[in-house]
Amino acid sequence: MSKTSRGNFFEDFEIGQVIRHATPRTVTSGDHGLYTALYGSRFALQSSDAFARSLGYAHAPIDDLLTFHIVFGKTVPDISLNAVANLGYAGGRFLAPVFPGDTLSTVSEVIGKKENSNGKTGVVYVRSTGYTDSGTEVLDYVRWVMVNKRDAASPPPEPVVPDLPAALDPQSLGSAVPLLDTSNWDDDLAGSQFRFADYAVGEKIDHVDGMTVEEAEHQMATRLYQNTARVHFNQHTQAHSRFGHRLVYGGHVISIARALSFNGLGNAFHIAGINGGRHVGPLAAGDTVYAWSEVLDKVEMEGRTDVGALRLRLTATRNLPCADFPLKDGEGKYLDGIILDFDYWALMPT
Amino acid sequence: MSKTSRGNFFEDFEIGQVIRHATPRTVTSGDHGLYTALYGSRFALQSSDAFARSLGYAHAPIDDLLTFHIVFGKTVPDISLNAVANLGYAGGRFLAPVFPGDTLSTVSEVIGKKENSNGKTGVVYVRSTGYTDSGTEVLDYVRWVMVNKRDAASPPPEPVVPDLPAALDPQSLGSAVPLLDTSNWDDDLAGSQFRFADYAVGEKIDHVDGMTVEEAEHQMATRLYQNTARVHFNQHTQAHSRFGHRLVYGGHVISIARALSFNGLGNAFHIAGINGGRHVGPLAAGDTVYAWSEVLDKVEMEGRTDVGALRLRLTATRNLPCADFPLKDGEGKYLDGIILDFDYWALMPT
Amino acid sequence: MSKTSRGNFFEDFEIGQVIRHATPRTVTSGDHGLYTALYGSRFALQSSDAFARSLGYAHAPIDDLLTFHIVFGKTVPDISLNAVANLGYAGGRFLAPVFPGDTLSTVSEVIGKKENSNGKTGVVYVRSTGYTDSGTEVLDYVRWVMVNKRDAASPPPEPVVPDLPAALDPQSLGSAVPLLDTSNWDDDLAGSQFRFADYAVGEKIDHVDGMTVEEAEHQMATRLYQNTARVHFNQHTQAHSRFGHRLVYGGHVISIARALSFNGLGNAFHIAGINGGRHVGPLAAGDTVYAWSEVLDKVEMEGRTDVGALRLRLTATRNLPCADFPLKDGEGKYLDGIILDFDYWALMPT
Repeated sequence: MSKTSRGNFFEDFEIGQVIRHATPRTVTSGDHGLYTALYGSRFALQSSDAFARSLGYAHAPIDDLLTFHIVFGKTVPDISLNAVANLGYAGGRFLAPVFPGDTLSTVSEVIGKKENSNGKTGVVYVRSTGYTDSGTEVLDYVRWVMVNKRDAASPPPEPVVPDLPAALDPQSLGSAVPLLDTSNWDDDLAGSQFRFADYAVGEKIDHVDGMTVEEAEHQMATRLYQNTARVHFNQHTQAHSRFGHRLVYGGHVISIARALSFNGLGNAFHIAGINGGRHVGPLAAGDTVYAWSEVLDKVEMEGRTDVGALRLRLTATRNLPCADFPLKDGEGKYLDGIILDFDYWALMPT
Repeated sequence: MSKTSRGNFFEDFEIGQVIRHATPRTVTSGDHGLYTALYGSRFALQSSDAFARSLGYAHAPIDDLLTFHIVFGKTVPDISLNAVANLGYAGGRFLAPVFPGDTLSTVSEVIGKKENSNGKTGVVYVRSTGYTDSGTEVLDYVRWVMVNKRDAASPPPEPVVPDLPAALDPQSLGSAVPLLDTSNWDDDLAGSQFRFADYAVGEKIDHVDGMTVEEAEHQMATRLYQNTARVHFNQHTQAHSRFGHRLVYGGHVISIARALSFNGLGNAFHIAGINGGRHVGPLAAGDTVYAWSEVLDKVEMEGRTDVGALRLRLTATRNLPCADFPLKDGEGKYLDGIILDFDYWALMPT
Repeated sequence: MSKTSRGNFFEDFEIGQVIRHATPRTVTSGDHGLYTALYGSRFALQSSDAFARSLGYAHAPIDDLLTFHIVFGKTVPDISLNAVANLGYAGGRFLAPVFPGDTLSTVSEVIGKKENSNGKTGVVYVRSTGYTDSGTEVLDYVRWVMVNKRDAASPPPEPVVPDLPAALDPQSLGSAVPLLDTSNWDDDLAGSQFRFADYAVGEKIDHVDGMTVEEAEHQMATRLYQNTARVHFNQHTQAHSRFGHRLVYGGHVISIARALSFNGLGNAFHIAGINGGRHVGPLAAGDTVYAWSEVLDKVEMEGRTDVGALRLRLTATRNLPCADFPLKDGEGKYLDGIILDFDYWALMPT
């Protein structure tokens, strides 16, 4: 029996199977500092203990996407080492704040499985849950990946495709945010004069700035998350891939776009839920990421007057400024240069 | 009204205007670790809690320039997003030590404004003050930047140019350093056998080593400071600039040169004041930074025998070793390859 | 007398000489986070306070190699600034765990010296010891370097070559690991189902994955360790070297290979001793590192049933996958592409 894991293939997954992923991870202020250095995020709540305390937090929580990447990274060796593509996310809920000192682990359940018509690959659906060492669930989400079969001759399983919501009910969200004393919310320090009431459904916001990505940056980020997917790290083999180069971890793109979105959404301090996400195109080192957002919906939160929920569609592009909000062509196909289509609920003070 | 800030133009600044900048920032040991990784600084006081405690500090303060960069970075979105050039600094005073756990914010006052003769740009002078969440001022300094006008046709304002000292009085400095028990100062651990008495006015020191800069490094550094100036990050637009590439944040050069200066100034443990600084030329990734120092002055500190003040002129170069102390040509113009001319007061044990 | 150190030459070392190296260093969670970002290490003990506590540690210790690099880095300005080559290591013992908050310093003793027949260089042997500010020794090891003579005409010293063990007695090791409550050792979280009993002497393990190295990464790593060797940082001079480029710090290769070895040795949680190490060939940015291991020996630890000792030979390569375990040719010469031959004792739960 080989000591070395080469990852799971399509045949290895069974509906209902539960996988406890390796390497629990204590999040520290070191990770937080690296997150800032990698993305330059400027949301005040995550940046400042003093700002966080003034609102009712014990101190500053880590960035929601840092939680996401760490929880996600643990699943890679078991779920997607032989993935052809990371097809999508849905139903992601941020359930509790994460602070430096918390230890995160991830468990996944296989909830769907369907062979592709080519007989060589299949789609696997997993629900992954991140939790702290005290057992608090901090995040769960569904993702589905296209995975290679070990043997094209193995028979196709009975297809099981989970029923996934197009969008989460925002009333089910927000548990990662304590009831805030927003009388202390300081718009100057937060960096935006615009509150929940100032945004309109249908509004589009160009985030203006662009960020060029370097190999060392995306590799350091992806290793920080202990994500081991080979396409991100091995130029010796990637040189012979159809791309010819390493691929940037899709989550790195989400974090860049989210950080860029501060310019226009400075008070959208928390990602409460991920309705869906799709990595539409690859990103390579040397490319410059731009982003724009559209307000898809806005909802008052039942039982709390401190914050409201904005449903935002965050589009990221590659070498394509977003002043004219590029997305799809007349036939509904994504335009060249679109790399991310990400739909989430953000909370914003009222 | 646009949700997105495109920064202020020359017309937007008024004398006496006070700007509270966004994104307070809790400094952590993560930032400290990154600072070490980015510059390799070896000054013992900032590197070792044990060394710091032996002298009378509670524990190791962060590097003075890390404080400077964080305080400075906050001003960029409001002051210099449309800057053509960062022209200079003066009157910088380090007022209190900063420790991991402190939260830093910045406020700026516009103290000068003068349109240029071309009618398209003007110079804006601001005094920026960094302070902790408990209200302690840790740094103030003046900088002036050349900013684009929004409209070349707008009339020039009455020129106001502040009176700036050529050099700070060292007796006004040193409040960031407690009275030290220098009987515990260990030259071996500090890395230098040379104390205050060993340096002579006029002495020149070649710091010998060179440090090559990479895109990922200067971007990570600049994002760590939450500095958003576009020229540092966007190769997609910089490719069409007169440089053709991203520009390295000038403060990154100061930190590299300061770290190199350890070789020859290992006991110059603290930057007490910045008399002036000029970014003489641009730096690009791939370039190698060298540095040399000249002792401009040395002054005993009134009321304290633990430390003395050395006024140092730190010159940094690009791809130009400094064995012959390069600076200006016979006509007083900076030589090709000079990128930084930085004048500061350092404290050193007696 | 020059303020600037240009490092020691062969003539400057004397048998019995003790050198207290500069810049004590408090290790923090920032350093730990950077180590993860630089290597993506996934060993559970170092990654998780909760996992560590469940076994009997106060909390997670830092990676053994981070200790090694920090202790080693301090010796560079005094020992190897003028080194032609870092020839080897032997007799390295990890004596106590290191935790964030500990301050590390290094002292070295010159234990051997022998001029080379060319009369221009010589080999210097030093035993370096890292210790905390409370005086606890955490690591000692011997290394030998080839150093330039200042003056080829200076007479050769009486040769002294220390007697170095080919391998450490594993019974002398393990003091950095408290007696573990391995009933709590969770193989799922640890990432491997294989314990001490599952490995056989002679067994070879290909670690499969490759990691491509970037300039920014190895420079940040090497500066993090405050290692100042010029060949790693100065492209302006390295362009004219026989390599034409910067050389990656050999310790960076050890850490990459160790992190890769998780795939196959996930339960080898601790490096207890370094029997020997040789940097067989140089590594440059852009190269991809692969690794494989051979089990050279396995020994039960006297007086403890929690862990056993595996003697492992870790081979790292450059752009050379390791499925066929490449090492030496028929004449005993290392194959092209071999860059590291590292022999160590690892501890693994029984």
